[in-house]
Amino acid sequence: MYVVKSPLSDENLKTVSEALQGALVDLVDLALVAKQIHWNVVGPRFRSVHLQLDEVVALARTHSDTVAERAAALGVSPDGRAATVAVGSGIGVTPEGWVDDSAAVSAMVDALGAVIARMRERVTSTEEPDPVSQDILIAITGDLEKQHWMFQAENG
Amino acid sequence: MYVVKSPLSDENLKTVSEALQGALVDLVDLALVAKQIHWNVVGPRFRSVHLQLDEVVALARTHSDTVAERAAALGVSPDGRAATVAVGSGIGVTPEGWVDDSAAVSAMVDALGAVIARMRERVTSTEEPDPVSQDILIAITGDLEKQHWMFQAENG
Amino acid sequence: MYVVKSPLSDENLKTVSEALQGALVDLVDLALVAKQIHWNVVGPRFRSVHLQLDEVVALARTHSDTVAERAAALGVSPDGRAATVAVGSGIGVTPEGWVDDSAAVSAMVDALGAVIARMRERVTSTEEPDPVSQDILIAITGDLEKQHWMFQAENG
Amino acid sequence: MYVVKSPLSDENLKTVSEALQGALVDLVDLALVAKQIHWNVVGPRFRSVHLQLDEVVALARTHSDTVAERAAALGVSPDGRAATVAVGSGIGVTPEGWVDDSAAVSAMVDALGAVIARMRERVTSTEEPDPVSQDILIAITGDLEKQHWMFQAENG
Amino acid sequence: MYVVKSPLSDENLKTVSEALQGALVDLVDLALVAKQIHWNVVGPRFRSVHLQLDEVVALARTHSDTVAERAAALGVSPDGRAATVAVGSGIGVTPEGWVDDSAAVSAMVDALGAVIARMRERVTSTEEPDPVSQDILIAITGDLEKQHWMFQAENG
Amino acid sequence: MYVVKSPLSDENLKTVSEALQGALVDLVDLALVAKQIHWNVVGPRFRSVHLQLDEVVALARTHSDTVAERAAALGVSPDGRAATVAVGSGIGVTPEGWVDDSAAVSAMVDALGAVIARMRERVTSTEEPDPVSQDILIAITGDLEKQHWMFQAENG
Amino acid sequence: MYVVKSPLSDENLKTVSEALQGALVDLVDLALVAKQIHWNVVGPRFRSVHLQLDEVVALARTHSDTVAERAAALGVSPDGRAATVAVGSGIGVTPEGWVDDSAAVSAMVDALGAVIARMRERVTSTEEPDPVSQDILIAITGDLEKQHWMFQAENG
Amino acid sequence: MYVVKSPLSDENLKTVSEALQGALVDLVDLALVAKQIHWNVVGPRFRSVHLQLDEVVALARTHSDTVAERAAALGVSPDGRAATVAVGSGIGVTPEGWVDDSAAVSAMVDALGAVIARMRERVTSTEEPDPVSQDILIAITGDLEKQHWMFQAENG
Amino acid sequence: MYVVKSPLSDENLKTVSEALQGALVDLVDLALVAKQIHWNVVGPRFRSVHLQLDEVVALARTHSDTVAERAAALGVSPDGRAATVAVGSGIGVTPEGWVDDSAAVSAMVDALGAVIARMRERVTSTEEPDPVSQDILIAITGDLEKQHWMFQAENG
Amino acid sequence: MYVVKSPLSDENLKTVSEALQGALVDLVDLALVAKQIHWNVVGPRFRSVHLQLDEVVALARTHSDTVAERAAALGVSPDGRAATVAVGSGIGVTPEGWVDDSAAVSAMVDALGAVIARMRERVTSTEEPDPVSQDILIAITGDLEKQHWMFQAENG
Amino acid sequence: MYVVKSPLSDENLKTVSEALQGALVDLVDLALVAKQIHWNVVGPRFRSVHLQLDEVVALARTHSDTVAERAAALGVSPDGRAATVAVGSGIGVTPEGWVDDSAAVSAMVDALGAVIARMRERVTSTEEPDPVSQDILIAITGDLEKQHWMFQAENG
Amino acid sequence: MYVVKSPLSDENLKTVSEALQGALVDLVDLALVAKQIHWNVVGPRFRSVHLQLDEVVALARTHSDTVAERAAALGVSPDGRAATVAVGSGIGVTPEGWVDDSAAVSAMVDALGAVIARMRERVTSTEEPDPVSQDILIAITGDLEKQHWMFQAENG
Repeated sequence: MYVVKSPLSDENLKTVSEALQGALVDLVDLALVAKQIHWNVVGPRFRSVHLQLDEVVALARTHSDTVAERAAALGVSPDGRAATVAVGSGIGVTPEGWVDDSAAVSAMVDALGAVIARMRERVTSTEEPDPVSQDILIAITGDLEKQHWMFQAENG
Repeated sequence: MYVVKSPLSDENLKTVSEALQGALVDLVDLALVAKQIHWNVVGPRFRSVHLQLDEVVALARTHSDTVAERAAALGVSPDGRAATVAVGSGIGVTPEGWVDDSAAVSAMVDALGAVIARMRERVTSTEEPDPVSQDILIAITGDLEKQHWMFQAENG
Repeated sequence: MYVVKSPLSDENLKTVSEALQGALVDLVDLALVAKQIHWNVVGPRFRSVHLQLDEVVALARTHSDTVAERAAALGVSPDGRAATVAVGSGIGVTPEGWVDDSAAVSAMVDALGAVIARMRERVTSTEEPDPVSQDILIAITGDLEKQHWMFQAENG
Repeated sequence: MYVVKSPLSDENLKTVSEALQGALVDLVDLALVAKQIHWNVVGPRFRSVHLQLDEVVALARTHSDTVAERAAALGVSPDGRAATVAVGSGIGVTPEGWVDDSAAVSAMVDALGAVIARMRERVTSTEEPDPVSQDILIAITGDLEKQHWMFQAENG
Repeated sequence: MYVVKSPLSDENLKTVSEALQGALVDLVDLALVAKQIHWNVVGPRFRSVHLQLDEVVALARTHSDTVAERAAALGVSPDGRAATVAVGSGIGVTPEGWVDDSAAVSAMVDALGAVIARMRERVTSTEEPDPVSQDILIAITGDLEKQHWMFQAENG
Repeated sequence: MYVVKSPLSDENLKTVSEALQGALVDLVDLALVAKQIHWNVVGPRFRSVHLQLDEVVALARTHSDTVAERAAALGVSPDGRAATVAVGSGIGVTPEGWVDDSAAVSAMVDALGAVIARMRERVTSTEEPDPVSQDILIAITGDLEKQHWMFQAENG
Repeated sequence: MYVVKSPLSDENLKTVSEALQGALVDLVDLALVAKQIHWNVVGPRFRSVHLQLDEVVALARTHSDTVAERAAALGVSPDGRAATVAVGSGIGVTPEGWVDDSAAVSAMVDALGAVIARMRERVTSTEEPDPVSQDILIAITGDLEKQHWMFQAENG
Repeated sequence: MYVVKSPLSDENLKTVSEALQGALVDLVDLALVAKQIHWNVVGPRFRSVHLQLDEVVALARTHSDTVAERAAALGVSPDGRAATVAVGSGIGVTPEGWVDDSAAVSAMVDALGAVIARMRERVTSTEEPDPVSQDILIAITGDLEKQHWMFQAENG
Repeated sequence: MYVVKSPLSDENLKTVSEALQGALVDLVDLALVAKQIHWNVVGPRFRSVHLQLDEVVALARTHSDTVAERAAALGVSPDGRAATVAVGSGIGVTPEGWVDDSAAVSAMVDALGAVIARMRERVTSTEEPDPVSQDILIAITGDLEKQHWMFQAENG
Repeated sequence: MYVVKSPLSDENLKTVSEALQGALVDLVDLALVAKQIHWNVVGPRFRSVHLQLDEVVALARTHSDTVAERAAALGVSPDGRAATVAVGSGIGVTPEGWVDDSAAVSAMVDALGAVIARMRERVTSTEEPDPVSQDILIAITGDLEKQHWMFQAENG
Repeated sequence: MYVVKSPLSDENLKTVSEALQGALVDLVDLALVAKQIHWNVVGPRFRSVHLQLDEVVALARTHSDTVAERAAALGVSPDGRAATVAVGSGIGVTPEGWVDDSAAVSAMVDALGAVIARMRERVTSTEEPDPVSQDILIAITGDLEKQHWMFQAENG
Repeated sequence: MYVVKSPLSDENLKTVSEALQGALVDLVDLALVAKQIHWNVVGPRFRSVHLQLDEVVALARTHSDTVAERAAALGVSPDGRAATVAVGSGIGVTPEGWVDDSAAVSAMVDALGAVIARMRERVTSTEEPDPVSQDILIAITGDLEKQHWMFQAENG
């Protein structure tokens, strides 16, 4: 079904839509992972980590919405379903069960690191084909790198 | 790793934790499904459905948090990871791609109906072992049934 | 015209819908009666009674909306029209004209008492058929009994 | 019981109090009718109509309070009881049960039209005896005619 | 010094500026009188009267500002100085010292009554020369008459 | 295309719709002119004039919306398109380029003066045919005359 | 002195009033104990524990007010005086002086555990005699168990 | 009529009540004078001075209320009536009519200077008899001196 | 355990810490007493007294927190436990059970009077050793004396 | 008249100022066109389209202000007068009179499409001469393309 | 250039202006130091310390503004330039680079201790010459000592 | 001490960290300079300049925080200490003492001009090595240039 006429050429659209769909999957998973640890963290830093994680959740939810609606605005159907996320996310496996606070912080350092690396590639790949999408991805990368710093500082 | 001493007996805890874990998976998926349709719906009722779906998302996110933290409060580690949700949700498959508004409304009627049926069973099963958890599940069921009515009325 | 598929059996639905429709009529009338006295009260306690009555109005309006939408969610058309209310309310006749503050307080004690008695019956009758509706009626009863205390204390 | 000394002559007061009491009854009924349809509307425009009707309810409730307190300020006891409204309202009978969205819109066009016609007469009749009351009725008429336009446009 | 070019003829301006200057003096004094009683009232209705009076103060201050700026907008310098108010106010003398609550309410009934009578004359006198000023005076009269009712009802 | 049934007779409607359409064009242009000067003013009073002008813009935008929707409520299609405004506005030509603050204030005194003169005629012409529209135009005239005073005082 | 007519039978009232009075004493003491530790805690987790304790204080104050007013609504005079609390609280002795953060967390785990155990008994005892009071006690128990989890997780 | 038992000795009370009554009169007049100039100022600094004066009005009204209620709290009836203010204020005569902006600023410098001088004496005289009243007068003096600086800087 | 290094000499610290600990106990008890009467008052002034008492509760809670944290800031562990308050408060015994409104007001006049007398001694004793603590106690005394006036005026 | 020293070279300034002036004209017209259709739309989607259009108006007004002030910041006088807009806008003619909802949506799809195409050219042309202006234009383009998607989806 | 006429004698002014200028320099530096550590702290208490430091920054910024404007109000030009602060601050050198959380807390304990000691001297020196300035310095000292306690407790 | 793993290569990191550290120093100084003039400005434009400067302060503080935390996120310790700022700022010397309004505006034009020139170089130098940092610097430059225009217009 045809819906939205894209302002991009087919070739540019292919590049940009891959970047956006990849970002969407990573961000939806980031929100789920951060909530999972938010609920399961234990240890003397429980409260600090518990609260910091909800900031990551809020940020990941807001950005996933922006990215998905950007894809739609370019005429590409976004896919943020659980099965798609479970398969396509760039974040490694989060172990089940309680997690002590140091491990929780390390898990977030790893998860954010993995997403950031992929986001930086997307920033590069979208520069030419669509500066509007790139601008969105740059802002997301900046927010993720700020969180990355905070969790690294927490374990510093 | 032992964390929280449960106020419930082992037997009651088993029943209640199954109910809460099941509710958590259903609610996380409900939020993902509602966002998926929020992004992909098209047709003359686009705006109405798009906005109504964000109310479902907000409601499902709030309740999933409540349910997961209730499980933790009973000493049970909640599991809301993408893979767990993809496998365990009571909601049927959401097709990929754009969806016209009538189909979108019908999909939500079905999704809500499936979750409500399971929630009503959980309300029953938790009555004796833990009235606190039951009270939470009753409130969630009420909210879901209100949304169920609205989507049925929309296609009425 | 068929609209909403009820989650309840026919028998249970009959019991619950009578309770909800009865509660709706009582609450709509309670709002009208409280406004009537709000406008007509005179005497040294004018301001206290005038303001307290608007709290009753706000509470009765909010709860009547909740009850009516709960009926709709169960597939039952709610009826809150003036003629239905005039005939079916459990509150006795409110005399016309100015009313002095002691009489105003007594009138509210009576009106709230009449509605509370019927609400407690509804709480009992809905327990088995629909704990979701019962939970709503319990919360309403609690709010009404709190107001009942305040007006009794005012004339204490 | 004598309460408030009126700033108007007896003759003027009679004219103005009839206008205000009539307006009160119409506005209380308008709020009840709009809520009734708010709960019972079904069809593809459910959400739009459901929400628009709550704007009518809010407007009618605010204005009925203003009109009743204006009557009191002139020394006339206002009467907004259910039985008075059921008998005296200028709005025709609202059928019971579910109502599809087109019929709902038409019902509101009719209800608003009926009230507006009577309000315009009250604007005329109060001009000489009490410009303060007239000013209130003019503002109400303006709000009702704006809603009248919106419902006509909805079915346009 | 010439400042603002009036949109009114000289004759009309004379009528309207007298009405506005008179209203200004009455309203400034009303605020001072209401504050005086707000501080000096005693008796079992202390809190009710104390709070109600601050509503009169807020209302009188807002309206005095509107009236003074309306005069300026017509090219007439407003005069709200203490000496002007002390001499020109339509409100009788407020006795010094503590005042019991019944006397406080009666004093406000008298003060409001005196101002309302003069306001109604101003509404009449400004109708032809300047409907904009009249509209402001009508709204003020309505607010004052509502307060007048409340204080009469309080002593009813 | 027939849309809204007018509550006015044809003759009255003609008079009122001309007044409202004229007011709409003047108010849309007033907002554009005020923004133009807001951007182009320079001089020691830059900040004061820049900020005061945004109050005019907000006021003109709000009132233009009210006037246009009043026309629609009477069954008359409003026209606020750029070409219509460019041709029909009662405000003289605003020169292009930077404008020093004294000239900016004078330009606003002239623009407001021109619109006020036409508004006062509309207040007169609509009194008989439609007091509801007149009441709206009176309130607008009051707001414009207040701004007119402020800009005259600024250059006083 | 007779004040409020209870909606409960004498027998039921006795059971329910004991539950509510007991809950009141526990909750008032919980607020005092949490404040005491809020002021006296020291150690590297000072800020986290200090802030978390104010959430307990806010929660305990709100719930103690609800419970006391519920007792009043049932016609039973609540008693929350210091001497009554000092004697009747279910929380053990809080030692005087500074307390390091681990001991502070453990003290809260114990205090909450003691109150929760008694609350669960009250939930059971009030089920039959008064579902309205039970519903209040269920909500309180849920909130306390959530805090209990958080302090256990903090020391996990 | 005896009302409030003073915590001060008769001698101390005499000193403090004179200070508070004097402060009350000065502050009420300051508010009236500032409003008078707020309405009558003209010239290129119209907007700046007009807005700054409303900050003085707000400050003077708040402080006059504090001072009057402090007198009442000490058992002394405060007197803020127009005639009392017209006679007893420490501020010189404000000329009638329009005032250009430089003269307006100078008038405020003088008015504030006059009040500050008297306030500093009151700060000294109340130090021994009542440090509570002194603390209030110190805070007022600080606020007035800040305004005094701003108006001096404005004309600097 | 040593925690905070005091900025005061040992002698001064002893004086100030006694003043602060005494104030803490009085203020915690004042909040408990005011809540006790808030729940138990009956009579025609129920609403006024009920609401006024919650202002006392809010004020006493805020000030007790300030005082306790001031003690901590000086290196002294504050003690606000129920048993300490029950024994050390300067407020006399509050009788159990319902209390009519006049008795409630009188009880508050007495309670506030007792605390104020002790606060004034603390203001004197702390002047030399610690003006920072004195400033806090002065502000508290001012607030309590304002409430004292209001309750005396209520029974005036 | 020279006002602001540009941070750009003459050549770059010429390119950038053309882009900004063009964007300004398009955005001012977009706000006017969206308001025009907001007032004139009729049909079953009236409310949805009416509300969505006000989001376009808000967005276009905010962005036009940003663009005009960016031009000023570069030393270029912006021109947003009605005649300039009527001649220079990139949006085609909007027909007069009522417009049914499908045509309204199509008109917005066309209008947004026309502006977006020109905005994308401006994004390209400003990249080298002024990345600050480009960043503003990128953000605007993103917002317009999001609206473009929503109107296309609405007619999808 | 003469600007503000001081209410103080020359001798008193000299003392007070030294106190205020010294306080200004200390507070500006305290804000800079707290921000420096806010950015550079690492370790398991990162989040707690990072957030607590922003409270110090907010407090120091607000108080530095108050102190500087107090100096201006006394006719003394305040000096808060970077070079003045770098030379005149009472806080020792903050080392460059990352700082672990324990060292960060210790650094703040030292910085606050140094400023508090100087502030207490200023409180003493200003008592006679200017109680208004002293009152400001007392409030600042109280706030700083509260922060001092919190950082000491954090390392306790 | 190693803390944060940088996402940039060593070479790129060197370039970007110099840009960010330079921006930090300039922005901290800009806030200090703007506050200095905010306190010391005198003359007829005192209020306008005083208020505008606080907007610069708010903007400079927010951006300095963003820039410092961006440096940290890249693994580079930011340095915003007073001595570093005093030495490294790009803003020339701000003379001590009172400053008349024209000189104040000129000083801000110069200060902003100096910072903008350096910011534009940083925008260029960071484009290749880190588009995320560049995006932050572009936004800052835009805000500074807007303020630059306003101060130039003020002296235009």
